[in-house]
Amino acid sequence: MMKARVFVTLKPAVLDPQGKAIQNALNGLGFDEAQSVRQGKVIDIELSGDDNSAVQSSVTEMCEKLLANTVIEDYRIEIL
Amino acid sequence: MMKARVFVTLKPAVLDPQGKAIQNALNGLGFDEAQSVRQGKVIDIELSGDDNSAVQSSVTEMCEKLLANTVIEDYRIEIL
Repeated sequence: MMKARVFVTLKPAVLDPQGKAIQNALNGLGFDEAQSVRQGKVIDIELSGDDNSAVQSSVTEMCEKLLANTVIEDYRIEIL
Repeated sequence: MMKARVFVTLKPAVLDPQGKAIQNALNGLGFDEAQSVRQGKVIDIELSGDDNSAVQSSVTEMCEKLLANTVIEDYRIEIL
């Protein structure tokens, strides 16, 4: 059993209204130090198998096919 | 200017229907090795100020007040 963690974030050039909403809420609560907020997803996957490189390539394929919309999102994989 | 990254994840005892939906979709695509999936949020914040411990305590307060629902969610803060 192995664990992988996938970070999916909007590409820097893509507007992030959800992050902007969080920033406005923080500023409204008095956290004026919050200058910019971006929100992304983190997906933790438990996988059967013990082969590090096989898991890495399998998770990469998952990202390309399902987890990330590569038109507007970047992804990063950590094998834990 | 400092950057903080906040991870917000459901507590382990809380059901995660969104993660389960991702797992089902992965299994349906033929990724039978995906045994369990949990989804969380990652929030990147740019903050004014240079004092590491002040930023840490400020972001902790943001988490308690807005970013996490501490009844069902855990949060973890990284100062980058």
